[in-house]
Amino acid sequence: MALKGFPLPRGMRDIGVEEMAQRLQINKKIMEILERYGFRLVEPSPIENLETLEAKCGPSIKDEIYWFEDKAGRKLGLRFDLTVGLARMVASRPDLTLPVKLAAISNMWRYDEPQFGRYRCFYQWDAEIFGSVEADADAEIISLTVDVLKNVGLKSFEVRISSRKLVEGFLNSLNIVGEKVEAVLRIIDKYRKISKEDFIGELDKLGLNSQQTEKILGFVSVSGEYEKVLSTILNYQIKNEKFLLGLGELEKLMESLKAFKKIEECFFDASIVRGIGYYDGVVFEVYDRVAKEVGAIVAGGRYDKLCKIFGRDLPATGVAGGIERLMLTLEKNGVLEKPKPLMGVFVASANRRVHVKTLELVERLRSWGIPADFDLRNRSLTRQLEYADRLGFPYVLIVGERELAEGKVKVRDMEKKFEEEVLIGKLKDFFVSRLKKG
Amino acid sequence: MALKGFPLPRGMRDIGVEEMAQRLQINKKIMEILERYGFRLVEPSPIENLETLEAKCGPSIKDEIYWFEDKAGRKLGLRFDLTVGLARMVASRPDLTLPVKLAAISNMWRYDEPQFGRYRCFYQWDAEIFGSVEADADAEIISLTVDVLKNVGLKSFEVRISSRKLVEGFLNSLNIVGEKVEAVLRIIDKYRKISKEDFIGELDKLGLNSQQTEKILGFVSVSGEYEKVLSTILNYQIKNEKFLLGLGELEKLMESLKAFKKIEECFFDASIVRGIGYYDGVVFEVYDRVAKEVGAIVAGGRYDKLCKIFGRDLPATGVAGGIERLMLTLEKNGVLEKPKPLMGVFVASANRRVHVKTLELVERLRSWGIPADFDLRNRSLTRQLEYADRLGFPYVLIVGERELAEGKVKVRDMEKKFEEEVLIGKLKDFFVSRLKKG
Repeated sequence: MALKGFPLPRGMRDIGVEEMAQRLQINKKIMEILERYGFRLVEPSPIENLETLEAKCGPSIKDEIYWFEDKAGRKLGLRFDLTVGLARMVASRPDLTLPVKLAAISNMWRYDEPQFGRYRCFYQWDAEIFGSVEADADAEIISLTVDVLKNVGLKSFEVRISSRKLVEGFLNSLNIVGEKVEAVLRIIDKYRKISKEDFIGELDKLGLNSQQTEKILGFVSVSGEYEKVLSTILNYQIKNEKFLLGLGELEKLMESLKAFKKIEECFFDASIVRGIGYYDGVVFEVYDRVAKEVGAIVAGGRYDKLCKIFGRDLPATGVAGGIERLMLTLEKNGVLEKPKPLMGVFVASANRRVHVKTLELVERLRSWGIPADFDLRNRSLTRQLEYADRLGFPYVLIVGERELAEGKVKVRDMEKKFEEEVLIGKLKDFFVSRLKKG
Repeated sequence: MALKGFPLPRGMRDIGVEEMAQRLQINKKIMEILERYGFRLVEPSPIENLETLEAKCGPSIKDEIYWFEDKAGRKLGLRFDLTVGLARMVASRPDLTLPVKLAAISNMWRYDEPQFGRYRCFYQWDAEIFGSVEADADAEIISLTVDVLKNVGLKSFEVRISSRKLVEGFLNSLNIVGEKVEAVLRIIDKYRKISKEDFIGELDKLGLNSQQTEKILGFVSVSGEYEKVLSTILNYQIKNEKFLLGLGELEKLMESLKAFKKIEECFFDASIVRGIGYYDGVVFEVYDRVAKEVGAIVAGGRYDKLCKIFGRDLPATGVAGGIERLMLTLEKNGVLEKPKPLMGVFVASANRRVHVKTLELVERLRSWGIPADFDLRNRSLTRQLEYADRLGFPYVLIVGERELAEGKVKVRDMEKKFEEEVLIGKLKDFFVSRLKKG
């Protein structure tokens, strides 16, 4: 066959050595916090029946995902988030003790137009609590989010919180009801992304009168520390039940967030509604103050009706954040850790006659838990040293006949360009103290 | 919408809490050894152009994998192994310093008929060395394999090794040449799975004469410690170049495996040829002595021509093992570790009046790195204790007004059914010593 390149499909990519090391480090830090909060990791199936995916988002989801027929003519789809799988899992397990706190860190696929830094396969961390209607569960999710973001290295971010009940109750008070509510919510979701003129224009198009539009414009601009904006919210003097329910939930949520010492990161923002249809309680989005242009780095909220679609009436609240966006945010903050350098030993042979001894030394180092490598290309000592240097090994052990005869090897400190002879019997002590894990 | 179940597609499954914890533990142990050998983890794209997948295995691979056309009419396929992606990655990166040692632990999909314990989505660990023709690279891969299997907990297994060059050279010496060689290799690959009669029958069908069949039957039965069977191999007095090349490679391989202290696990077995077409040097399969029925738990070998298909002429040798098979083998050996019990504290409230204090204590425990949880269903104290017990918390902290007034909380040891009052100021010391990570 003729030589030719085999490119990846559009929007797909490989994760290389350095990025993978960074991801493993970030996943570890996320998992530390998940464990501390009692969440347990699972992995839902990456392939679902198309029907399951449509159950969450309606048949139009087909246009945005990878779906296909298998050889038996079944319609299947690659998951587009982790929440659907987690909800379906929990709905199918009536034996689970409630509440149950599940999490996943994995990949998913969407058939979006690829953009800079956005791919058709990407990763999210996702944590969900099933089986609790309490505002404490929402507080738990938001507290988890704050601790996850701090643990991966972010220092300055805002959790912008609102309540779908509050906003829907407000819209109802303006005689906006039925399907129109969702249409208005979709426009409110764009409040911070489009101009004021466009915002008003879109509401006009829906047939809202100028008084309604003006009131919405006033309401969605309410944002700030909850205790400071509360009087503004109360001034609207809205008496409908949904609004008051929303207000009551927010009240409890903020009390719990204060007890969790997370209130400093949390703000009320009436423009946060989450575009997706199934949210029905507390909703929130997190923005980094430095990397504002990245947009929401985490988002979540309460969705008490989704599990019912999958066959079990279970309240639920959760959070999901993109790993790629998180990495971009860390980078823009200058806190994306570089992968740790190799903390091992390259064992170089002076010539082929010490080949067996070289392998024995490699084996011995590894048996002590010390990463060790050696030449696999039958190269000269000079070339071996160049290779070890390029790979970043801090130490090279040079195996030569003269030193071996004295039970020794030469150890070269690659940074200090310093060589010393070490007794083979003392090698373990020599390296264990020098190569402690950073 | 009516309530109904949403099953998973045929052959698909979720990974639940306990299995996920076991997998993370196993992955960690595999990664420890990979690091010690200087392999670095990457993640190749899960979706490839169908053309790329066909390049390795021919167009018939379509019948065995998930493939589909995307919305732009491109033919795409879900990866069926990790080797293709790794080879394609390396071929597209001429900047990489050679040799390069890459590894991946991830999932893949095959459209097989689902069987007990076999699913259409499964996981493998995979490690490959690109850019070395030396037998040391094959020894490195086998040594890695032995250390990985030992580190995950296996104690008694055999690495059965042969050489495609040796076997092909032997077949050539019987005047079996051209396409017939691969046909015979496919039959030899089944030697241990089918009866002697069926084996002979299949060779007959290929048109081999009885002398050829008899000689093959004799040769493939050669197995045992390399040094002991070497004289048998030499007795065949085969002089063709391929056979001698294979013998030379095996000779060097065994010398290196001895230096690596892995020779005890390694055996020569002329019936090991690996069915897949692209292997062309040392090949091996690993069998557990206890869980024989599981079949090969790891397999690998040298494939010097595959990368060339992807546009770069690079020698390569590697290994891959199924995670599910590995877990089954560990289970049958009685060494599949149970997930560690929760080592945290459940903070129970005596009543709603201590709610804020309860949350504050949860936050404090977590800030010390101690996993902590609390009631999210507004339950009575008795029900909270039942829940904590069912989840396996070793300690419950009971927050009551009387104790709080004295700056104390009650701590219940759930195993010993023993309660004591602890000063809140002493809680950190109390738990840090008791909940050290196992």
